[in-house]
Formats: sequence, C-alpha cells, structure tokens
Amino acid sequence: MRERVFSGMRPTGKVHIGHLVGVLEKWMELQKEYDCFYSIVDWHAMTTDFEDPSELKENIFQLLADWLAIGLDQENSVIFLQSQVKEHAELHLLLSMLVPMPWLERNPTLKEQVRETHIPKINYGLMGYPVLQASDILMYKGNKVPVGVDQLPHLEIIREIVRSFNRLYKPIFPEPQEILTKTPKLLGIDGRKMSKSLDNCIYLADPPEVIREKVHQMVTDPQKIRRGDPGRPDICSVFHYQQIFSPGKIEDVRHGCEAGTLGCVENKNNLAKTLADYLGPYRERREQLIGSQEKLKEILEYGANKARPIAQQTMHEVREVIGLWS
Amino acid sequence: MRERVFSGMRPTGKVHIGHLVGVLEKWMELQKEYDCFYSIVDWHAMTTDFEDPSELKENIFQLLADWLAIGLDQENSVIFLQSQVKEHAELHLLLSMLVPMPWLERNPTLKEQVRETHIPKINYGLMGYPVLQASDILMYKGNKVPVGVDQLPHLEIIREIVRSFNRLYKPIFPEPQEILTKTPKLLGIDGRKMSKSLDNCIYLADPPEVIREKVHQMVTDPQKIRRGDPGRPDICSVFHYQQIFSPGKIEDVRHGCEAGTLGCVENKNNLAKTLADYLGPYRERREQLIGSQEKLKEILEYGANKARPIAQQTMHEVREVIGLWS
Repeated sequence: MRERVFSGMRPTGKVHIGHLVGVLEKWMELQKEYDCFYSIVDWHAMTTDFEDPSELKENIFQLLADWLAIGLDQENSVIFLQSQVKEHAELHLLLSMLVPMPWLERNPTLKEQVRETHIPKINYGLMGYPVLQASDILMYKGNKVPVGVDQLPHLEIIREIVRSFNRLYKPIFPEPQEILTKTPKLLGIDGRKMSKSLDNCIYLADPPEVIREKVHQMVTDPQKIRRGDPGRPDICSVFHYQQIFSPGKIEDVRHGCEAGTLGCVENKNNLAKTLADYLGPYRERREQLIGSQEKLKEILEYGANKARPIAQQTMHEVREVIGLWS
Repeated sequence: MRERVFSGMRPTGKVHIGHLVGVLEKWMELQKEYDCFYSIVDWHAMTTDFEDPSELKENIFQLLADWLAIGLDQENSVIFLQSQVKEHAELHLLLSMLVPMPWLERNPTLKEQVRETHIPKINYGLMGYPVLQASDILMYKGNKVPVGVDQLPHLEIIREIVRSFNRLYKPIFPEPQEILTKTPKLLGIDGRKMSKSLDNCIYLADPPEVIREKVHQMVTDPQKIRRGDPGRPDICSVFHYQQIFSPGKIEDVRHGCEAGTLGCVENKNNLAKTLADYLGPYRERREQLIGSQEKLKEILEYGANKARPIAQQTMHEVREVIGLWS
C-alpha cells in the first residue's frame, strides 16, 4: 500500500502564484508517489473568519477551481470539503481530551499569528487549531504532511497527540512526518510576504493585462533610474521572480541589468510575458471550471463520498479502542 | 408548544440517593410541565476519565437503568446517549469559534474542580466543558436547565455564547434559564459531600442489608455514648437524613434524642427501614432493567432516533445562518 499524504488549505479566496510555486506544485508531485488527501478546510477558516463568513461558499468554489485547473486529480487523490465529513468534528472532540492546555498555549505559530494579524482575543476554537489539524490527518492515518517551516510547531503538537493516543489506547495511528515545502517563498509585488490582505498578489485568475500591470508595479533597484544606469539585480523583485520562472535566461538578465544594457521596462515586459504564458493554461481551465458551480459541487460530493467511508472506519476503530459506544 | 428542558448526567456509575433527592426527583417533576431532553453525556465523562474509560459502557447501562427505575419516561421525554447524536460534536466545534479563552479560564467551577479532584493538568477538552454543554442545550433550543448552584457559572458562559451567536448570525437560540435544584444537598454517610470517590454513598441499587450497614456507620453526636445520654440532633447525620425522609416524625426524633429516651442504634434501625422502604421499589425495577442490556440498548436507540431529527434540523439552521455548506 502506498503511504498517505494529508494536506489542507483554508478557503480564503483565489490561489495566488505564491501558493502555486511554494505549495501546490509540491502537492502535484506528491500525487505520483502517495495516496493524497487534499481538503478545503472550511472549519479551519472559521477559527479566524467567524465574524463574517459570508464569502466562505464563494471562496470554496474559487479554491477548488484553482486546484483542479492546476491539475490536482480527483480520481487519484481525494479532494474534499472538510465540513462535509462530519467525523472530523467527532475526532476533534475526542482528541481534545488528550491535549494539555500548555501544549496549545506555548504554540509559537499561534503567537506569531496573533502578532501579525492583530487578533484582539484568542478564541477557544483558534486555540485548538492543531487539535483540529490532528483530527484531519489522523482520520486518514496520514504518514506525510507537506508543510511550510512555520507549520512545524503544529506538526510537533500533532505528533504529541498521536503518541498520547497510541500509548493510552492502542497504537493505531502513524506519527505523521513533514515534507517541507519550498522556501524561501515567492514575495509579493511590493517585496513583502505575498498575502491577500496586503493586496500584493498575482493570482492564477489574473489575465495577461492584469499581470502586466502588477509586474510594472514591482520594485526594482531605486538607483537605476533610466536605461543605461547599472542595476543591482539582487535587490530587484523582478529578478527574484525571474530566478524562479526564467532560470535559463537568468545570467543574461543579470549581465544586462548590471551592464545597463537591459532597461527595467523592457525586463518587466519580459517577465509579464513569461508569467502570462506560464499561468495562461491554468487560467483558461479555471475559467471553464468556475463557470459551472453545479459541476464543482458534484466534485466535492464525489470527494466526500471517497473520504467518508475511510473516516467512518477510523472512527469505528477509535471508539472501539477507547471503549466508547460504537 | 411546551418549553423545553435539557439536562445531562455523566455516566460515572450507579445513581446514589443524593442524585435522587437533589436532582432526579426534580427531573421527574419537570416531565409534567416541559418537553424534557435527558442525556447520558458520555463525551462529558471523557473530559476527566479519558485515561481509563473501560467502565464507560457498563456505567451507561447502570445510569440508564436507574433513570428508568425512578420513572423517567422515554415516551414523554427524550432519553438518549450524547455520543449517539454526532451533531453535538459539530455544534461544539462551531461554537468553539465564538468563545474567547478568558471566559473559560475564569470559570470558577473549573477552578474548584481542579482543586477538589487534584487534576494535575487541564486538558483542552476539560477547558471547553461549558462549550460542549452549550452545544447540548442549544441543539434542542432548551429554555430551561435544571442545575445546582455550582453549575451556575457554566450556565452564564452558555448564555454569553448564545448572545454572541444570536448577535453575529441570527437570533435562533433562546437564552436558557436555570431551574435550581434543591440545596442543601444530602450528605454522605461520613457527613462529607456524597461522592463515589469518597466511598460514602447509599445507592439506589443497595439492598436493605447494605443500607442497614451503611446507616450504622453514620456519624452521630460523639458526646452521646449510650442510650440515656442527651444528644444534639443538629450535628447528627442520621437526623439530617430523617429531616428529608421522615419529616412527619422529625419532632419526635428530636425530643427523643435530646431527652435521651431514643438511642442511636434504635434510631439508625428506624432510618435504615425508612430508606429501604423508600428505595425498595426503585431497586426492584432497576434489577429487572439491568438484567436485559439488549432492552436498554433499544431504549437508547429509541431516544437517539427521537433526538437526531431535531438535532439535524438545528444544524441545518445553524449552517444556514452562518453561511456554511449545508
């Protein structure tokens, strides 16, 4: 039997190119080697977006369309909406009994999140974020979890939960191991971390003219004012993108920039074209997909129907080893 | 439509006479005036008994047999096992998003519990005890909740959760009000709080000879050593019981004790007989019931089948007003 991968993404809107390069291309790769479970984790989105979840449904469609456009495959992988498999809530509740508060209170990822997003108060659900993640992963007895470095503390808490469960009851769960996703991450067009809330993203859904506009806003070397001035590519956002998207031409760009023979406007035009070519096929497929919400709903049901029997089987086992009514 | 009552009891073993007098007689009464939902809350039991829940199933049968023996009526009330209505776990998860940690951290009931039972560490599930209670009560849109004084802080947290939910989404839940159960409570045979862990309980299941033995262990006035010595009934456990179970004879007992004409042994024999007569019919019915676990299982299924459609309807509404997939 192939090992299992679990990963989830919160439905906060359209996928941006940073997700694609950093995370989703990895997910694509993993499909070849593992049985993959990819979940749109809407309950996780509720941990912070509970006050106005009005866009949640629309965001789920957007995310799903992006996933499918990229090539996540609902035949080989299990692609599903978390809240359609209710067993996750039950396992979350049972695991919550095993988790000492200090494990959650010391969680550095939470501390950073609170600092970064200025959350005024931590709610019980947000505090339990890793417990809900544990229920997602354990439900499918996931062996591997693709995560960024910032999620490693969560995975460590999850492993502690697994050890507790296995020791107290019966060793039915593997300890999930991380598969680190690529770092450093692709930066936003303003050179900061790419993030929807900073309005600095290039989306898969962006047509060529929008990409062009965004690329032209990118920050280049401020000392290179006109063509002919020598530039410093290492502090240039355009160059940062080209290292990833035009690795074959990267030495030419460096020389041209440093020698002053390549102007910023020309170079931005080049990058805009590269990105538009790269994203074009994805965008076309996502446009087709997003046009039929009925079809997308069916795909979610298809995935939930694949996930649910496995979840039911796991819950049966869990209740059995704990000694609960089954 | 009649108002709804919700209450739950953790399956920690057989019902003792303190439960009966303090709580269950109240539950019986409420059946006449309200639509009652009485739940054996096994998930709540897990908040503290997660390390060895091996007796959980047996305890569920014991508790159910006691309830039915007393006269809780599965036709008029909904008598069910919490974990058989999975919707409670889903609502618990959704409500957890709305509860700021300080509401739970300041919970005086939890603080007392930690002090009393020497819990070495608070787990996430125990911290969320009132959140799970809220999901139980809200699931049936309970108007009234019979509780002891010690549970009032929980009910206040639950009302805060209701207010938050109703304000954020739509006012679909009533604010549950308490119906205070009788105090002061019946004490254990050693004069301390009656509690299984203190081994000082008289159980509904106790046959007359066991009741007699326990009554004879009760602490009387230590200055009254033999018949003829004047006694102080107000510090006597036997008298404490007689105030509740023999109110008609209580003045005679007081005079006899104070005058020294009534000896402790004679008086204990009287109480033992009174209790045996009082509990006898309950004990006989519970013996019949506990003999057929198949029948008890059916009764639980019957209750779950009555509870579940209501729970499903509530969850449908909840998902709708939040904006989640339904």
